Amino acid sequence: MARDDGRSPDQLRPVTITRNWLAHAEGSVLVEFGGTKVLCAASVQDSVPRWRRGSGLGWITAEYAMLPRATNTRSDRESVRGKIGGRTHEISRLIGRSLRACVDYKVLGENSIVLDCDVLQADGGTRTAAITGAYVALADAIAWMRKRKMCNGDPLVDSVAAVSVGIVGSTPLLDLCYTEDVAAETDMNVVMTGSGEFVEVQGTAEGVPFDRSTLDALLDLAGAGCAELTLRQREALS
Amino acid sequence: MARDDGRSPDQLRPVTITRNWLAHAEGSVLVEFGGTKVLCAASVQDSVPRWRRGSGLGWITAEYAMLPRATNTRSDRESVRGKIGGRTHEISRLIGRSLRACVDYKVLGENSIVLDCDVLQADGGTRTAAITGAYVALADAIAWMRKRKMCNGDPLVDSVAAVSVGIVGSTPLLDLCYTEDVAAETDMNVVMTGSGEFVEVQGTAEGVPFDRSTLDALLDLAGAGCAELTLRQREALS
Amino acid sequence: MARDDGRSPDQLRPVTITRNWLAHAEGSVLVEFGGTKVLCAASVQDSVPRWRRGSGLGWITAEYAMLPRATNTRSDRESVRGKIGGRTHEISRLIGRSLRACVDYKVLGENSIVLDCDVLQADGGTRTAAITGAYVALADAIAWMRKRKMCNGDPLVDSVAAVSVGIVGSTPLLDLCYTEDVAAETDMNVVMTGSGEFVEVQGTAEGVPFDRSTLDALLDLAGAGCAELTLRQREALS
Amino acid sequence: MARDDGRSPDQLRPVTITRNWLAHAEGSVLVEFGGTKVLCAASVQDSVPRWRRGSGLGWITAEYAMLPRATNTRSDRESVRGKIGGRTHEISRLIGRSLRACVDYKVLGENSIVLDCDVLQADGGTRTAAITGAYVALADAIAWMRKRKMCNGDPLVDSVAAVSVGIVGSTPLLDLCYTEDVAAETDMNVVMTGSGEFVEVQGTAEGVPFDRSTLDALLDLAGAGCAELTLRQREALS
Amino acid sequence: MARDDGRSPDQLRPVTITRNWLAHAEGSVLVEFGGTKVLCAASVQDSVPRWRRGSGLGWITAEYAMLPRATNTRSDRESVRGKIGGRTHEISRLIGRSLRACVDYKVLGENSIVLDCDVLQADGGTRTAAITGAYVALADAIAWMRKRKMCNGDPLVDSVAAVSVGIVGSTPLLDLCYTEDVAAETDMNVVMTGSGEFVEVQGTAEGVPFDRSTLDALLDLAGAGCAELTLRQREALS
Amino acid sequence: MARDDGRSPDQLRPVTITRNWLAHAEGSVLVEFGGTKVLCAASVQDSVPRWRRGSGLGWITAEYAMLPRATNTRSDRESVRGKIGGRTHEISRLIGRSLRACVDYKVLGENSIVLDCDVLQADGGTRTAAITGAYVALADAIAWMRKRKMCNGDPLVDSVAAVSVGIVGSTPLLDLCYTEDVAAETDMNVVMTGSGEFVEVQGTAEGVPFDRSTLDALLDLAGAGCAELTLRQREALS
Repeated sequence: MARDDGRSPDQLRPVTITRNWLAHAEGSVLVEFGGTKVLCAASVQDSVPRWRRGSGLGWITAEYAMLPRATNTRSDRESVRGKIGGRTHEISRLIGRSLRACVDYKVLGENSIVLDCDVLQADGGTRTAAITGAYVALADAIAWMRKRKMCNGDPLVDSVAAVSVGIVGSTPLLDLCYTEDVAAETDMNVVMTGSGEFVEVQGTAEGVPFDRSTLDALLDLAGAGCAELTLRQREALS
Repeated sequence: MARDDGRSPDQLRPVTITRNWLAHAEGSVLVEFGGTKVLCAASVQDSVPRWRRGSGLGWITAEYAMLPRATNTRSDRESVRGKIGGRTHEISRLIGRSLRACVDYKVLGENSIVLDCDVLQADGGTRTAAITGAYVALADAIAWMRKRKMCNGDPLVDSVAAVSVGIVGSTPLLDLCYTEDVAAETDMNVVMTGSGEFVEVQGTAEGVPFDRSTLDALLDLAGAGCAELTLRQREALS
Repeated sequence: MARDDGRSPDQLRPVTITRNWLAHAEGSVLVEFGGTKVLCAASVQDSVPRWRRGSGLGWITAEYAMLPRATNTRSDRESVRGKIGGRTHEISRLIGRSLRACVDYKVLGENSIVLDCDVLQADGGTRTAAITGAYVALADAIAWMRKRKMCNGDPLVDSVAAVSVGIVGSTPLLDLCYTEDVAAETDMNVVMTGSGEFVEVQGTAEGVPFDRSTLDALLDLAGAGCAELTLRQREALS
Repeated sequence: MARDDGRSPDQLRPVTITRNWLAHAEGSVLVEFGGTKVLCAASVQDSVPRWRRGSGLGWITAEYAMLPRATNTRSDRESVRGKIGGRTHEISRLIGRSLRACVDYKVLGENSIVLDCDVLQADGGTRTAAITGAYVALADAIAWMRKRKMCNGDPLVDSVAAVSVGIVGSTPLLDLCYTEDVAAETDMNVVMTGSGEFVEVQGTAEGVPFDRSTLDALLDLAGAGCAELTLRQREALS
Repeated sequence: MARDDGRSPDQLRPVTITRNWLAHAEGSVLVEFGGTKVLCAASVQDSVPRWRRGSGLGWITAEYAMLPRATNTRSDRESVRGKIGGRTHEISRLIGRSLRACVDYKVLGENSIVLDCDVLQADGGTRTAAITGAYVALADAIAWMRKRKMCNGDPLVDSVAAVSVGIVGSTPLLDLCYTEDVAAETDMNVVMTGSGEFVEVQGTAEGVPFDRSTLDALLDLAGAGCAELTLRQREALS
Repeated sequence: MARDDGRSPDQLRPVTITRNWLAHAEGSVLVEFGGTKVLCAASVQDSVPRWRRGSGLGWITAEYAMLPRATNTRSDRESVRGKIGGRTHEISRLIGRSLRACVDYKVLGENSIVLDCDVLQADGGTRTAAITGAYVALADAIAWMRKRKMCNGDPLVDSVAAVSVGIVGSTPLLDLCYTEDVAAETDMNVVMTGSGEFVEVQGTAEGVPFDRSTLDALLDLAGAGCAELTLRQREALS
């Protein structure tokens, strides 16, 4: 089956990871998965939330948002509506959990890092691009901290990358673009470490429930995709 | 390994499904998974949201909430805080998606059903209990509609049940209670149809990433658990 | 005049007070006045609001809410609307004031008790049922505190119960159910101590203003009703 | 017992009712009960809320608020806090209910009148001053409507006035100022029609529950006070 | 060109500045520019916002609001809508900046003054009337502080007044009333010190852009108007 | 006086206007004034706000926002805080007014254009860069509409550009960067048409009031700056 953009089913879109896109942030990355562009900024703070003070442990959080015209049709700003939508909440939490999986809080010390992932342009896979880019911004922010001796040793215990997979017209596809995402019967986001283990698996039947062999095929595809993204992250950081 | 309450690793807690717990709702269920008690109310409306009008298709949504003292420590009301938290949003969306998987919108016609799942008491697995109970409330609401000829035929194409599984001290456990949930290295919620296919798989590494064989063991456990819950739903409805 | 459910004008609906309905709360009661079911949870905190710190005095507050499908037609959640309605505010404040009338703050010490009154099912008189049930939950919470020596002596100086009365078709009726409440020309909620004094009297003309003799008749009826509810509370607590 | 300002226990503070204080409103009154100053504006709208359309009936609502420096200590604006407090909600509802008691909705036709009662300066009794002044603003707004033939006949079936009464140091006092209100053991707000019947009775024990004879004494005092306020309203309107 | 109210183009409306309009505030003024009436209250607090603590410097802020029926058509309360509108925000900030221009923070010491400017009736120029009146309330509040030795010397380094100017039908006009404001092609608000220098110049083309000579003519007119308002402030304060 | 970046007092920073930065928007520009980067997206809608329907006239609005890490220190998201700040409101309104000055609503027809100006990186002058870039995005959106015959003729009657000027250490400077902005005694934002007339003049004394000759010097500087920006806009659009 030929995909609209000519990719093979197990092929990623062109991935670009541009470091230091912003002048002020301790780490910042513009990550592109094809037409999806996410600006990831890592902000270091030498304190932790109140509930964690005195523990000697650090903290990582993330906030995800979309610019109003990132999408084909303009959507209202959540600041104007006065509240954050369910989807935004859900993705912010996913990004935070994913990045926390590769950090040793003790080594980080009582410092926090906030990852702001703002989607400038959306074409499917914004959350997986955000996680993949945010890891690189996080690594840069941690390097910045280490230069200033803010932590004892390296708090990064592994790397983290993410990709979407799905079944479109019975075919398992890697890294869905927007039109594929809309057409998918099943949609899965997989977050994995650089050493190939799972951090998060979120599979959803859109319309048709799926069986175990479909699940297995999607996990295989995602494993290969995350491994490739891990390489891209390493190249970008070297 | 013995569990605190003496269960074997692959054993559900006592499950109770009490139908018609409320006088006014078209369908209502008090579902209990051990100490977890969720009141599920299905409300029928003979209209659909604005964006769906004129389509001839119905709609299903869900709202999840916890009473302030459902938990060991009292938590503030979201109505008092003036906004809904990320966790609430995430679970409400999960319940809605799960139940939509077993409904044929065309047969439902331009009617909506809202599933309110209010946790009266929490002891782990509130979202999976909510899905399992909400399905029964939904079935009762649909029976109520069919008596009134609001839909042509049966819009229910399958049943839906859900269970949590996790790794505690290297052992895969079914249907985690609160203390097990807190101790789990990996935590997974699985939603399945009565015919044994997946509707939603959400696995999260809490602390330690997990490998494929762990994932497989958890899916096996969840499959057996959902099959048993499906039987309980059938018993309750018969 | 015969009432719909066959009661005499001065007769309460069947009253049930089930203690320890919840596992976690220091005191909890499911109170039923006929079809009205309110879950009352008392939560003890070993601190007081900021404005009261250092005074040596305790504090009691209450929060009232209704589940969306407690009523015949589903109502939106206040958490979803992002604000608390006027009726909810008014009733929460009434419950708090009523219970504070039977507590000696000095003996309570710098501790707080929050009474959460959540209406699971509504059939008129939800606020009076809430007060009557919350008193029992409060008594249980105070007993819990005394076992742990959190207060010097008994902070409860009296008991508190409440009932609604109204004029329907010129007849004064005790403990109105929903259909009577809607039909009432005058509606009064009366909160009294176990020793027969008034804590709160709130009478409202719905449509037709009322004269002093009507007011007197309603107060007589309420006095008898509260006395009977006081007995039920004592039975439940013994 | 001498009161701070030399009044006898059954004496009102100086009452001033200044009509047409505002240029734009259809009815407007600056009402003063001693140091309490409330600006009441009646706004006529030739429509009714959605739920009342097509009924042929009118509607009356009220909104109460306090300027931040009406009181001795500045309080934050509710617009800045982003929500309306419980006390504001409660008083707005009371004013609305009270004024609705003297209006015939059928004669009013499908028109609405909003009564805005803004406390410019507070010295106790702001809600009773607001009701007393709002009635006069309402009467002026209705006269304005009748000139324009917006209603068939006079929708005003009676007048409405309100006063506070309370027990201070065992003595029943009429029209409490702020320092008396703070010192009161029992506090009651009474709304009555010009013909001497009750519209609303709200009595609250502040600290000490009260008996029936105290309640009777307070109602007597309030009856005389409302009768006098009714005279002042008539003088102002003639 | 004759103006509707017979004024010459360079003539202010009748200006009234009534001091001590409120009993509780440390400074308070009812300022009237023709039909525009603004109540300005200055509240002294012996503390500063968190970000300024320990600096030895004081702070001045302002909040502007309109009563719902200040205008010809009733507008909703911002407290009811749950948020402050853009116009309110903008004017509050302008008033605060303007008054800060005449205060020496060091002499003020770590004290704050909040200026509440509430428009009771609006007929154009509410923000300029608010600034002009707020200055007088501020001067009274500072005199109150100096009596209590809260500051070392006089923190007021100058006075501040404001006026609106605009082009209506090609003629530059001083102090626009509402109908003139609506008809203006260009609208400018100018804030000046008593010594004749500019604090704020805000000119806006409404429809037609304006050239430099128009700007110059408007600034001349505003300069004369502010000088006259400065005299009125001095008279009021003497 | 040498400026930090070596510019002469009347020199703009390097200005870059990149068109079509986004794939979906009808017009989009990344505008850079030195280190200030603003993404401007123009969204066309074939409808107008409710209050303008049936008038035959179009409408233009703007929304301004800053990404949390656009600045040196991370700031909280307005969506998370649940409300829009005063500064954001003020700038959004300024951008909207400025762009409306160059559009003929009749020719635009009943269509709307929303200009979203999101600051990706801030180094002073974000609002003037936003206006300058938004004009180009607007021009592109209008070209897009004209291709689709959505308007009769060209609704653009002129162009609009903006620049900041200020007094730093007694010297009037053009196009202040952030450190200059902080140090400025007087700060002015000037919006002008391509034909050299004023759309908006906003001058603020920061600390020291300014005299007429200072104002004149700043206006001269701004005039030259806007003329140069107009040239850059023309180059970008050709």
